[in-house]
Amino acid sequence: MLTASVCTIGDEILIGQINDTNSGVIARELNKAGIKVVFMASVQDDEGEIESKINFLRQISDVVITTGGLGPTKDDKTKNIIGRMYNSPGNYLHQGQLDIISGICKRRGFELSESNRNQALVPDCCEVIVNKNGTAPGMIFRGDYIKNTYLPTLLFLLPGVPYEMEYLLPEVIEYLKKVYPIEDIYHKNILTHGIPESKLSDMISEWEKSLPACVSLAYLPDPKIGVKLRISIYGEQKIIAGNIISKAHSSLSSILKDNIYGEDEDTLESVVAKLLKNRSATLSVSESCTGGRLSSRITSLPGASSYFKGSVTAYDNKVKNSLLNVPEQIIEKFGAVSNECASLMAEGTRNVFGSDFSIAITGIAGPEGGSEDKPVGTVWIAVSSKNETITRRFSFTGKRDQIIERSASQSLDFLRLFIENKTI
Amino acid sequence: MLTASVCTIGDEILIGQINDTNSGVIARELNKAGIKVVFMASVQDDEGEIESKINFLRQISDVVITTGGLGPTKDDKTKNIIGRMYNSPGNYLHQGQLDIISGICKRRGFELSESNRNQALVPDCCEVIVNKNGTAPGMIFRGDYIKNTYLPTLLFLLPGVPYEMEYLLPEVIEYLKKVYPIEDIYHKNILTHGIPESKLSDMISEWEKSLPACVSLAYLPDPKIGVKLRISIYGEQKIIAGNIISKAHSSLSSILKDNIYGEDEDTLESVVAKLLKNRSATLSVSESCTGGRLSSRITSLPGASSYFKGSVTAYDNKVKNSLLNVPEQIIEKFGAVSNECASLMAEGTRNVFGSDFSIAITGIAGPEGGSEDKPVGTVWIAVSSKNETITRRFSFTGKRDQIIERSASQSLDFLRLFIENKTI
Repeated sequence: MLTASVCTIGDEILIGQINDTNSGVIARELNKAGIKVVFMASVQDDEGEIESKINFLRQISDVVITTGGLGPTKDDKTKNIIGRMYNSPGNYLHQGQLDIISGICKRRGFELSESNRNQALVPDCCEVIVNKNGTAPGMIFRGDYIKNTYLPTLLFLLPGVPYEMEYLLPEVIEYLKKVYPIEDIYHKNILTHGIPESKLSDMISEWEKSLPACVSLAYLPDPKIGVKLRISIYGEQKIIAGNIISKAHSSLSSILKDNIYGEDEDTLESVVAKLLKNRSATLSVSESCTGGRLSSRITSLPGASSYFKGSVTAYDNKVKNSLLNVPEQIIEKFGAVSNECASLMAEGTRNVFGSDFSIAITGIAGPEGGSEDKPVGTVWIAVSSKNETITRRFSFTGKRDQIIERSASQSLDFLRLFIENKTI
Repeated sequence: MLTASVCTIGDEILIGQINDTNSGVIARELNKAGIKVVFMASVQDDEGEIESKINFLRQISDVVITTGGLGPTKDDKTKNIIGRMYNSPGNYLHQGQLDIISGICKRRGFELSESNRNQALVPDCCEVIVNKNGTAPGMIFRGDYIKNTYLPTLLFLLPGVPYEMEYLLPEVIEYLKKVYPIEDIYHKNILTHGIPESKLSDMISEWEKSLPACVSLAYLPDPKIGVKLRISIYGEQKIIAGNIISKAHSSLSSILKDNIYGEDEDTLESVVAKLLKNRSATLSVSESCTGGRLSSRITSLPGASSYFKGSVTAYDNKVKNSLLNVPEQIIEKFGAVSNECASLMAEGTRNVFGSDFSIAITGIAGPEGGSEDKPVGTVWIAVSSKNETITRRFSFTGKRDQIIERSASQSLDFLRLFIENKTI
């Protein structure tokens, strides 16, 4: 399998000033194209560092893709360092890129400066990938010698600005496909909720042992998602990979049953949205300890207004009465974090918003407010339709933010099972 | 200067399935502590790869911090590989971590499984950093030999789940400070809102040129924060650094005035919280396009219930009428995204919740729903007290999520200026 390393260049990454998102994008696209990313690195804007680390990467992979370090400012040195590394006798002016640079300057009303013009200067030994969206061109360096040993590694330099990089990346992949035979790779994500990673691992360990060698399985836990199981098939033909995947999917379904809620790019929000849209049904929610997080997640999807009526964050207990019509005596008698309050909140919410379904969450996100009886992490969730209201008590661990996120996820999964009439 | 490498472990990063955010967090915190990150890497879940790349990192830096690969599942192998690398004769069971694991299982209602228990097993030669928020402990490996050469490099293994890693990171830094003399570095963050980065840079460029050589300035833009200006002082004594910082702070204040809203760990949420608490005043909000994000941010602070009454997400226009008493004819005449609607939403919210102040947001977050007159990113924000209601129209750029985040930030900053009677 063709292997690649990805390298981002820039002090701003190493001091944690910006998060590197380029590496992820490049890895995703290479992976889709059947190229295996074996290493990702970020290096400083320092001549010695750039040279030594790029040479290291050239020795561990067939392809190296760098981003950054091609700008017009003084801390952007990559091009010259690489030219020298490859013993390039000099630079040449790439007319196509210069034309684009001139056009950009003209549109912005600037004179073409010396430093603008220098951006079209590239080492003699490289090929250029013209950058129509910016001033710095991409560059391709073919194999070369390191200490008398010939390395066939292909080196690509791409600009660091994400949308410029993303524009040039398909050309890099096209180039690679012409030069190398590329092996196929297939992925499938199975999304689960309600089973912790370690228990999941125990439940499917027998099945996992039976997987053919071309299959690899990864567990990806996330408080927003649950546990994502990623099945990857290497070096098989599409039709065979497809068969393996569908067999795996059905085996997992028979073990994990309703704990599987979706696949690939699905989310709890999108799965619930689909269920509601299929039924032309509407939803409203009320939140106490989650403080708006559930509503915020539901409305993060474009088009949520077709099924989502709205929400109330009833942070003050009085609001549970004044807006959601939960009787004050109920809160006094059972407390706001109770089966009774959750249930009446959900019903009140459904009535007030006139929706088909509703969710209510009331709990203790901490760090304060817990008691022996109801420790931090105690959360009551209710789901309601005109026929039925169901409540459950949950105990979540983690910090405030984790408890909030998990409560929101759990409530969406709760609603999914409720709408589908499945065991909760 | 003490140097460090950061290494994330996991196929999910190398196939681009998740973006690595841990490296950025670690880099930022090490940098703050005066430790220089010289290299960042991501490696595959593969025995040979983990061993060879960690050994490489041990040779290029004084400290190596890894995250990931410590889970209970089979693709998480790091611990055993490192144990073998360090010729650890076996594993020991860390009782403290086991107690935490047992507690977590108990709270979640699961039996303690074999794979749960194994998480408390660590190589004999390592020290443990107990992880209270998860099952995988952090581990510390002191110097050791690689091919007969002694390397003093300290190696820290941390779990990959971000909030667990973030919880253990301060202990890593404390540990390093005990073992190594770390050069003094002082930081001050000045938080600004309402001026874009490029304009800010123009406004303070003269001042920036006048800074002494020991000072460096970084611009850290973030849709939740605005632009954070970080002033760093290297290699000076505490008292001198303090003087330089207070001088810089006052110079910036005289240039940027009310656009500075806080410093260091302040957030727009916390600054508004302080203003409200100082006045024993309460707040409620109503949201349309932000869908609960503002409420969620306000309640992300522990103790928000002392000043926050709650919120309504009025996603359906009817809710603006039924819950917030905005007359239907106003919405028909001016539209939901209008000065009039925003203003009446804010007043309605304040009345319904009985709060001293309120915020209302109504706008178009996109990608659909824009028009020539009101393109995507058009947002009306209103703030209200019993004396006055003020509205402003804003135009935000970016994708849906950025428009939502910026609207929420802007509304908090708007309220800050409103409460303080400053020019908005």
